[in-house]
Amino acid sequence: MSDNKIIDILISNGILVSMDKTTPYIKDGAVAVKKDKIVFAGDKKDMPVYKPITTIDAKGGIIMPGLVNTHTHAPMTCFRGLADDLPLMTWLNDYIFPAEANLNPDMVYKGSLLACAEMIMSGTTCFCDMYIFEDFVAKAAKTAGMRALVGEGLFDFDSPNYGPLEKGFDYTKMLAEKWEQDDLISIAVMPHSPYLCAPPLLKKALLISEKYSLPLVIHLSETKKEVSIIKNNYGATPVKHLANIGALSPSLVACHAVVLTEEDIPLLKKHNVKVSHNPQSNMKLASGIAPVPKLMKNGICVGLGTDGCASNNDLDMFSEMDSAAKLHKVKELDPTVLDALTVLKMATVNGASVLGMKDKIGSIETGKKADIIIVDINKPHLTPMYAPCSHLVYSVTGGDVTTSVINGKLIMENRKLLTLDIEKIMADVRDIAKKIKYKRYKI
Amino acid sequence: MSDNKIIDILISNGILVSMDKTTPYIKDGAVAVKKDKIVFAGDKKDMPVYKPITTIDAKGGIIMPGLVNTHTHAPMTCFRGLADDLPLMTWLNDYIFPAEANLNPDMVYKGSLLACAEMIMSGTTCFCDMYIFEDFVAKAAKTAGMRALVGEGLFDFDSPNYGPLEKGFDYTKMLAEKWEQDDLISIAVMPHSPYLCAPPLLKKALLISEKYSLPLVIHLSETKKEVSIIKNNYGATPVKHLANIGALSPSLVACHAVVLTEEDIPLLKKHNVKVSHNPQSNMKLASGIAPVPKLMKNGICVGLGTDGCASNNDLDMFSEMDSAAKLHKVKELDPTVLDALTVLKMATVNGASVLGMKDKIGSIETGKKADIIIVDINKPHLTPMYAPCSHLVYSVTGGDVTTSVINGKLIMENRKLLTLDIEKIMADVRDIAKKIKYKRYKI
Repeated sequence: MSDNKIIDILISNGILVSMDKTTPYIKDGAVAVKKDKIVFAGDKKDMPVYKPITTIDAKGGIIMPGLVNTHTHAPMTCFRGLADDLPLMTWLNDYIFPAEANLNPDMVYKGSLLACAEMIMSGTTCFCDMYIFEDFVAKAAKTAGMRALVGEGLFDFDSPNYGPLEKGFDYTKMLAEKWEQDDLISIAVMPHSPYLCAPPLLKKALLISEKYSLPLVIHLSETKKEVSIIKNNYGATPVKHLANIGALSPSLVACHAVVLTEEDIPLLKKHNVKVSHNPQSNMKLASGIAPVPKLMKNGICVGLGTDGCASNNDLDMFSEMDSAAKLHKVKELDPTVLDALTVLKMATVNGASVLGMKDKIGSIETGKKADIIIVDINKPHLTPMYAPCSHLVYSVTGGDVTTSVINGKLIMENRKLLTLDIEKIMADVRDIAKKIKYKRYKI
Repeated sequence: MSDNKIIDILISNGILVSMDKTTPYIKDGAVAVKKDKIVFAGDKKDMPVYKPITTIDAKGGIIMPGLVNTHTHAPMTCFRGLADDLPLMTWLNDYIFPAEANLNPDMVYKGSLLACAEMIMSGTTCFCDMYIFEDFVAKAAKTAGMRALVGEGLFDFDSPNYGPLEKGFDYTKMLAEKWEQDDLISIAVMPHSPYLCAPPLLKKALLISEKYSLPLVIHLSETKKEVSIIKNNYGATPVKHLANIGALSPSLVACHAVVLTEEDIPLLKKHNVKVSHNPQSNMKLASGIAPVPKLMKNGICVGLGTDGCASNNDLDMFSEMDSAAKLHKVKELDPTVLDALTVLKMATVNGASVLGMKDKIGSIETGKKADIIIVDINKPHLTPMYAPCSHLVYSVTGGDVTTSVINGKLIMENRKLLTLDIEKIMADVRDIAKKIKYKRYKI
């Protein structure tokens, strides 16, 4: 048998929802993986004869691309459920900021390991992260075997990580150089938001992003209050303010994009800006509902994200899909808005585009990286099944994911994580939580 | 040892969230069950010495009352995901009605068994059901060991079950007499809605409800279209229309209650009408957002329900709690609205009140029926835990429930159903699904 017949992983005996452009799904699908890449994806009967080193039986489940979480703050697992249902400023000033005051690399690393465990176990294979001490988020993702686009949060005040802002740029450059050749970790420049970053910061961030060819990720137009602050300070909406600075571009990821004017949308489109939609966080923090159907009608690429654990309070992208599909229907009073396939695209192919990885991940196609999950559908809440896509959005939860392959490596098998010691990680984060000083929440 | 020290079940080694009025939670809780009743619930150190026949180790998880699903159509599991994202009339006329045309007792029974399996496995111990052939829903619940309030759907046109309407009343009386002494099954009178039930039907339903002391359950003010039809036909909103007929009372359960006027709310309050809130169904069908915070501010008792599988598409009350808590925050643009404890009450004690069972179930208290579940919190997405109540609403999913005791009987242990053959039930419903004639959905 010739060498090119030897493959690393063969996944078969499942329904293939590849998210490529041609087929909604293939009943008896198969995927062949060699090294980090997909070398065959399609109907099993069309598959060449391979000699696989590892064979994975999907047991009649759904074989699909791993989900792409386009916006989160992984270390915030440490603050999951620390406080909820509070006015935004009370929540921030009395709970989140005091809890974050003692942030250190150890907390960031362990909290991120927990986030990776949770994400893998709920079907996410790639995430985009903004926080501080991001080198340790990158290390955690690398340890877990996850794909990640990470960037150090930049703002005008001092950071517990790098100190004064100027060092933040150095830290970002360090990350870019350190991880440049990595097969899993990519780096982005991440100014926090127009309200925490004055124009000099934004301009410098833009320069670094251009010099190193890195994406630029920012929280943008998340709340009415932000829009009013920026209008007051700069006489423009946050989107127009970024346009004036020259920061709108195809490699800009605008997270949230909730409060937009009629003029903002064509501006985003003109510059081919990408949007990360975070419905559950926007609901829980009462920020508002992003005009996603309108953004999409205008041809803007929208991915999906969970935001951090403190405002969600989980990292389950399946649950996020369900919320996205339902929220916009009730907002528009139109049940045809954001159909299941559209939402599934947001969590896969569109998510990949948002992160600048559309040629690499987001669908199961020959030549793409092998980021693949299997969903067990032999469960009461997934029976019967008329249409895989409907189930994936409206009925599947993260707990139904059995298997995860990332970059060609088997990371989870039958819900057992192969890269992480989950009991130890949970114990570590419980220890961290015990030491966090916060005002006790009532129940 | 005296006889009163012998108990049937002792549950310990868990955090007790009893939902009684005194304590948010007890760290080292214990619950003792004798026959169908709770004989002790509280701190383990205060517990008398018992001799339990069965001991259940909660393994550090949360011990809490089983959830109460105040509105569903159990047999519609057969149509889960058959069609979504369609205009309401297309969905009904081209998919749901044709699928329902061949309804028969076998489908209803098997579909309901599947619904019971799904509900038990996601923490529900009691549900309220409206459909046709309801005797078979009752039988399924009885077989599963679930508590249920069931009623035959009554409407002006002929039913595939009982034929002409008059027989529907006979069928309801038959149900009431047949199940009168049952410890799990209760019967309600269930006229479908003001738009499918003319005043003579509603008046007769009311009479039967009064004669047999049965709750009256109805879909009420679910959509703008319904309100406009009723206003057009009777010159009143659906709520006022029912008031005019004399049907508003403390034993009326109004399901949905989405489109209400300023005058409707005091009317509902005046008559102490109960409301079943179904956020996910209202979102998916784009019906609108019920004014739940306002209803509650006016002292109206609101429970939570999933509605049927065809418009949700699952029966997971934990996911329903998450949606309820988040949806109203973003609608009101106020993150303090519907806090976690309030929503947890909706799914437990309030749900029990809605179904007229507040003295029997809804909380873990001495003297109440033993409807108890255990939630495993040793999972990444539930780590760390600062406040049990927050996790139950914002992070737990149905899949985290390990154990279910209903009416003092162990029904599920370590996620294994003890009353149902789940593989056979799933196979049966898949067979049913194969025979359903429907227009193929695109994906």
